Amino acid sequence: MPRLIKKSAKTRGLPPGAIVHIGEKKTEKVKISVIDYSIGKFDEKEVKNVEECFPYVKKPAVTWINVDGLHEVEVIEKLGKCFDIHPLVLEDIVNTDQRPKMEDFEKYIFFVLKMLYVNDKTQMIHSEQVSLILGRNFVISFQETVGDVFDVIRERIRKGKGRIRKMGADYLAYTLIDAIVDNYFIILEKTGERVENMEQDLVSNPVPETLQQIYNLKREMIYLRKSVWPLREVINGLLRKESKLIKNTTHIYLRDLYDHTIQVIDTIESFRDMISGMLDIYMSSVSNKMNEVMKVLTIFAAIFIPLTFIAGIYGMNFQNMPELSLPWAYPAVWIVIILVGVSLIIYFKRKKWI
Amino acid sequence: MPRLIKKSAKTRGLPPGAIVHIGEKKTEKVKISVIDYSIGKFDEKEVKNVEECFPYVKKPAVTWINVDGLHEVEVIEKLGKCFDIHPLVLEDIVNTDQRPKMEDFEKYIFFVLKMLYVNDKTQMIHSEQVSLILGRNFVISFQETVGDVFDVIRERIRKGKGRIRKMGADYLAYTLIDAIVDNYFIILEKTGERVENMEQDLVSNPVPETLQQIYNLKREMIYLRKSVWPLREVINGLLRKESKLIKNTTHIYLRDLYDHTIQVIDTIESFRDMISGMLDIYMSSVSNKMNEVMKVLTIFAAIFIPLTFIAGIYGMNFQNMPELSLPWAYPAVWIVIILVGVSLIIYFKRKKWI
Amino acid sequence: MPRLIKKSAKTRGLPPGAIVHIGEKKTEKVKISVIDYSIGKFDEKEVKNVEECFPYVKKPAVTWINVDGLHEVEVIEKLGKCFDIHPLVLEDIVNTDQRPKMEDFEKYIFFVLKMLYVNDKTQMIHSEQVSLILGRNFVISFQETVGDVFDVIRERIRKGKGRIRKMGADYLAYTLIDAIVDNYFIILEKTGERVENMEQDLVSNPVPETLQQIYNLKREMIYLRKSVWPLREVINGLLRKESKLIKNTTHIYLRDLYDHTIQVIDTIESFRDMISGMLDIYMSSVSNKMNEVMKVLTIFAAIFIPLTFIAGIYGMNFQNMPELSLPWAYPAVWIVIILVGVSLIIYFKRKKWI
Amino acid sequence: MPRLIKKSAKTRGLPPGAIVHIGEKKTEKVKISVIDYSIGKFDEKEVKNVEECFPYVKKPAVTWINVDGLHEVEVIEKLGKCFDIHPLVLEDIVNTDQRPKMEDFEKYIFFVLKMLYVNDKTQMIHSEQVSLILGRNFVISFQETVGDVFDVIRERIRKGKGRIRKMGADYLAYTLIDAIVDNYFIILEKTGERVENMEQDLVSNPVPETLQQIYNLKREMIYLRKSVWPLREVINGLLRKESKLIKNTTHIYLRDLYDHTIQVIDTIESFRDMISGMLDIYMSSVSNKMNEVMKVLTIFAAIFIPLTFIAGIYGMNFQNMPELSLPWAYPAVWIVIILVGVSLIIYFKRKKWI
Amino acid sequence: MPRLIKKSAKTRGLPPGAIVHIGEKKTEKVKISVIDYSIGKFDEKEVKNVEECFPYVKKPAVTWINVDGLHEVEVIEKLGKCFDIHPLVLEDIVNTDQRPKMEDFEKYIFFVLKMLYVNDKTQMIHSEQVSLILGRNFVISFQETVGDVFDVIRERIRKGKGRIRKMGADYLAYTLIDAIVDNYFIILEKTGERVENMEQDLVSNPVPETLQQIYNLKREMIYLRKSVWPLREVINGLLRKESKLIKNTTHIYLRDLYDHTIQVIDTIESFRDMISGMLDIYMSSVSNKMNEVMKVLTIFAAIFIPLTFIAGIYGMNFQNMPELSLPWAYPAVWIVIILVGVSLIIYFKRKKWI
Repeated sequence: MPRLIKKSAKTRGLPPGAIVHIGEKKTEKVKISVIDYSIGKFDEKEVKNVEECFPYVKKPAVTWINVDGLHEVEVIEKLGKCFDIHPLVLEDIVNTDQRPKMEDFEKYIFFVLKMLYVNDKTQMIHSEQVSLILGRNFVISFQETVGDVFDVIRERIRKGKGRIRKMGADYLAYTLIDAIVDNYFIILEKTGERVENMEQDLVSNPVPETLQQIYNLKREMIYLRKSVWPLREVINGLLRKESKLIKNTTHIYLRDLYDHTIQVIDTIESFRDMISGMLDIYMSSVSNKMNEVMKVLTIFAAIFIPLTFIAGIYGMNFQNMPELSLPWAYPAVWIVIILVGVSLIIYFKRKKWI
Repeated sequence: MPRLIKKSAKTRGLPPGAIVHIGEKKTEKVKISVIDYSIGKFDEKEVKNVEECFPYVKKPAVTWINVDGLHEVEVIEKLGKCFDIHPLVLEDIVNTDQRPKMEDFEKYIFFVLKMLYVNDKTQMIHSEQVSLILGRNFVISFQETVGDVFDVIRERIRKGKGRIRKMGADYLAYTLIDAIVDNYFIILEKTGERVENMEQDLVSNPVPETLQQIYNLKREMIYLRKSVWPLREVINGLLRKESKLIKNTTHIYLRDLYDHTIQVIDTIESFRDMISGMLDIYMSSVSNKMNEVMKVLTIFAAIFIPLTFIAGIYGMNFQNMPELSLPWAYPAVWIVIILVGVSLIIYFKRKKWI
Repeated sequence: MPRLIKKSAKTRGLPPGAIVHIGEKKTEKVKISVIDYSIGKFDEKEVKNVEECFPYVKKPAVTWINVDGLHEVEVIEKLGKCFDIHPLVLEDIVNTDQRPKMEDFEKYIFFVLKMLYVNDKTQMIHSEQVSLILGRNFVISFQETVGDVFDVIRERIRKGKGRIRKMGADYLAYTLIDAIVDNYFIILEKTGERVENMEQDLVSNPVPETLQQIYNLKREMIYLRKSVWPLREVINGLLRKESKLIKNTTHIYLRDLYDHTIQVIDTIESFRDMISGMLDIYMSSVSNKMNEVMKVLTIFAAIFIPLTFIAGIYGMNFQNMPELSLPWAYPAVWIVIILVGVSLIIYFKRKKWI
Repeated sequence: MPRLIKKSAKTRGLPPGAIVHIGEKKTEKVKISVIDYSIGKFDEKEVKNVEECFPYVKKPAVTWINVDGLHEVEVIEKLGKCFDIHPLVLEDIVNTDQRPKMEDFEKYIFFVLKMLYVNDKTQMIHSEQVSLILGRNFVISFQETVGDVFDVIRERIRKGKGRIRKMGADYLAYTLIDAIVDNYFIILEKTGERVENMEQDLVSNPVPETLQQIYNLKREMIYLRKSVWPLREVINGLLRKESKLIKNTTHIYLRDLYDHTIQVIDTIESFRDMISGMLDIYMSSVSNKMNEVMKVLTIFAAIFIPLTFIAGIYGMNFQNMPELSLPWAYPAVWIVIILVGVSLIIYFKRKKWI
Repeated sequence: MPRLIKKSAKTRGLPPGAIVHIGEKKTEKVKISVIDYSIGKFDEKEVKNVEECFPYVKKPAVTWINVDGLHEVEVIEKLGKCFDIHPLVLEDIVNTDQRPKMEDFEKYIFFVLKMLYVNDKTQMIHSEQVSLILGRNFVISFQETVGDVFDVIRERIRKGKGRIRKMGADYLAYTLIDAIVDNYFIILEKTGERVENMEQDLVSNPVPETLQQIYNLKREMIYLRKSVWPLREVINGLLRKESKLIKNTTHIYLRDLYDHTIQVIDTIESFRDMISGMLDIYMSSVSNKMNEVMKVLTIFAAIFIPLTFIAGIYGMNFQNMPELSLPWAYPAVWIVIILVGVSLIIYFKRKKWI
């Protein structure tokens, strides 16, 4: 599970705008790919030197520059200089401990987003920071590792599927954010399955491990919430702001995206509610089980302790115990024992303990 | 119980606006019925081909097209093309995992709503997505299965009862939404009865199954809430928006509808409060029962263990035990035993354990 | 205790505006009384036929028509027609499951309110719906039964006490609402007493019945809250709206009324907080009591079980038990038993269990 | 502890504006004192008849009339008539169950505040209602008893300390409210000490009385909150309202006062949080203690019950028990007993129960 | 741990604006240092008399006056007079119990902030009040002790690193606040580590001390929250206010600062959520452990108490007990004992208690 806050001691004391990579180095080599397209045109290449991207700035076609790997700070600095990006933005891109946000710099809009995926082995949620810069005719995207979420979009551009080739850079940015939000639904589906499994366990066989699992789920929901809540403001801000970079035709798609975000948040809140309900159920069923244990103990103790006392009485060695010599005394004691035992059993049956 | 989130893996990677049906296929054949009416006129038919609906577009009378079954995507696409509906809307219609919402496209208003009904056998709440498109003189409604909630409205139009034939398409749309909201009250009534039954059980005979029932109720309330809360915004948005499609005379009906929605939400919140109170009561009464069990155990053990000890003493085989030969020793021990027993019983009576 | 939601199956499927009485029929005969007054004039009568009220409409004096009993729908329909009331309003008047609300129809303002009273026998809160229609120079009030809350106001008008005869219909409406809100304070006082009694019980003698009482209180607070919260909006709406029907001189009284409503709501919230605190205390004190029970058990068991074991040892019948023949063995065993017992008692004293 | 709601049956049924004293009669004689001051002038006297205050109305100097004791309604009525105060205001002054509030009547502003003090003996919080009327050049203050909170201000005016003599009536009103808010900090300090003491008790020695104390603290916080929260709106309203009675130079003092109020509210909320945390700790530590009790019981029972069984076996009187006659049987049984005991002790040590 | 509220009895009764130091005296001697810089110029000195700072007021370069130690009230009064600071501001500077806030006095803006640091020995969070006054070309900062957080900034100015020498006083103020907020992240990192350690303890070995630690964490979060929440408003207010003292170029830095503050608040809220989850887990695992203890007790008691009863039977001394003389009776009793014991063990295995 990712930590709620990353070690960022590296940046303490540095002036604002100092571009220092914070976070794990998740990939070996920084990989830069460029896609340049318009309705009739498509050009894709992987570049070695960041300088190769620069000529695209002035071309009218939509340019999408994707950078995988954030640890080579110089690459990002050069890109920043070429596209005239504010140093604070560059700082935010390489500091992977950002809160999702949107900032409008008039000439470009800057987005920070969290890509979430579930590690199939550990079943834990991991997160990766994705930053987007949307300019008049370009989108620059920054990822921590080589991801595959954007591959479908690349494919769609290549084949000219859908309306993506006909629309501008704003639509491309929307598509990228949409792909990230779409991915949240996968996380939620998996979480939903885990919740349902746990609900059944809770009923059929609650064990101490269930408690740990409930806590893990709760913790994940806290983490998810922290990653997704700010997205709401991001997209809402985009809808309200009258940015020249966002065309009117794209607005309807943003509204759709906003609906999806709200749906993700709603579902997280519902899961939180259900998890807290499960914890209550768990605690109650632990109490119920203890009740059952206590009943067993009480029944055994309450039946046999009095009987043992009766037997103890006639185990005493007094010389003057007239009962001992009566021939029917022993069977009589047995009858008494059976009567006491049976009446106690009836008593407990009446109390519905047996 | 319906899941909080549906499997929608089918749409991952598709471009926005791709029309793919998500959700169970609940009916075999798509059924399309058309009702066309004005004050003096009434025309109703069931159509085989969706194309038969198209001529109604230009007629001035109010046309209500109802589509039952969403899995035949082409039907919906054709309808969409004829009525000039945005692809994102069509996507939302066939994706039955939508959050209730309202979107104003100037030429038409699009609604997504959730129809809820209780399965009489399992006592569980199921939901079905209903989409409405309100145009200048038409309403198109989409349901997952052939439902009977709208039958009363059909009947009312046929017979010209009430003011429905005199009003426009906006009033028809209101009537349809009103029928859905009215249905929520039935759900709430049934839930109310279950809550009351459970309250009585809680007092008279709390059993572990009660716990499961409380959790189920809680879960259903989470689900209901998720379906109904957004409706508030939907109708409020409609009231505030100055849409040309909504006439002034309809506004008062919308205000009434808004009140009903608030009432549904209030009641859900009250049920949530009561259910959480019931859980507290349940947990306390489990503790109370354990207390009772412990008291029984303690009384038996505390009375008979000391007595058994006394009997044990005189069961010892020491040669030099002067008491053993005293003739009044045995009755004396009995007196001691009775005294100890009685004083312990008095002690527990004082403590109000007996 | 009143249900949170009433059975209203009767209205399902009816067109909006259908006037059907929902709720218990609480009175036998509908009773209509008319009071007509101005500074110098006072006229009061009870009418048999609703038609007798109609001439008052055009007179300039303030007319107060009070209707007790809602089940004779025709009476309300006739009144509605005469005073030109919208059918939806009439529907709301006879449907006694309304949420408190205020609606401004320009020519008149419509209020729905909840009158609450405590049944002296069952100590439970009951509610009755009161609807008011405030016109330019008339107020029509609808109650479910013949109530006595408005009697003081009637008396005040008769005697010309206070400023009521000098003010208009808006002041009369204010006075009626004020009487209802004043009544809430009586409920709160009674609830306050019950809360204080319960607090003392909780400390001196917590029993399982207390739990039931706490739950009942909690449930009542949920009910009260549901009835009173909307009132806040009602009166606030009245203050903000620039209705021609409300004169400026009445505004200060409405502000006072608003303060009272807020105070009622504040007190309900405080009670809720205290009740939830009481539940925590109850649960803790149940645990404390169990602790005490367990200590008694443990002390008895831990002292006598080892002693019984010692006695058991010398109850064995081995031939070769040299201790048995020693003359001082029996007193020695007694000394051991006393030493063990005393040291265990000291041990438990140290632990502060005794 | 003061009740959350006072008995106010006296006012039921009276017309609005009826001036009836509600609350305890806390002082014997109503005491009226007048202070009249400007930069160069100072005049102070205690008046017998309220009429003696009237000449001050027209003088330009600032006049502060302080009334201690609210039960002589005529005094307040006369004052009201002279200063032209609305009857509803007079009603609120003598009804000591008001919520803190501020009302602007253009010619004067009316404040209701709650003065809180801790009874040194019972350690309980008591409250007293203080009303202020701020006019163009006068302040009238009403207290339930002769208090000493305003004495410092009186002294300051007498000696001409600070800027009070140079400023107007609005600054005087601010000073009075500031004195009341300052007093809240004393309450909070005392509460803070109690919370800290309780925290230490909780750790070192949690007893059932602690529970009662936690509940009392919780209840007091509910009461404090109810008294202080509305103050926020009062002062905020004052800041926003452009009243001619408040000069610009006083605004900065009001902002400071607002900050203090927020700080009081923040601290109350933090205490509430801490108290709820303490309750959780208490409940957990009760469970921990029960665990400990159970362990002692289990250890004693689990060790000695099997041993007693072994002794019981050889206490049987069968004729044919070959072990009984073996000479080493008795020591062998002792060895078995010791082995069993020791291994059980080791078992419990492993479980960390000993 | 710092108290939630400080003893401030010293100021009770003093007029507003009375400058009295509240809080611990944390340093011996007040230390004043002055830094005066522009792009080309740098001047730094430590002054003995506060009067030495005064000449800097009129110079155009940016002047930063830092005062360490607040107990010499005259120093602060002289500074206040020279820079024309309102007495209420000076009062707030020396009263170290302020809530973080920002006040705009047109000629200068006044900030109160809380510097937090963790005591390395006790692991507790301590706080220190830092006040800033931002004027047209000067910043005056007040600290309780000689701190080292601002040293990096001093170094940056000395060396002309970053853009600090090129920017105005507003940027200097931003840098100081940024340094304080940056420090919060260190606190959060340390807290995060403690939370993670505790999570592992909770699973592997929950002990009563864990409870105390959870409570301490909870208390610290309450304290942190109280210190950091108001900061949000402070910086937001700064962003919204159109102060002439804040240049446009600084706005983007303030937005960045705002994001950081939100992130701190988000993380605190997440920690609060996790801590409350940990408490639930703790309580459940205590119940689980008690369950386990009870099972051990029940198994021992339920197996050996019946067996002891059987042995007790044949320890009775009746003369007429035919079984006693049967030669196979003793082995038969053993068989019965073993059968009973084994079947009870099987019973408990089935129940999964063993």
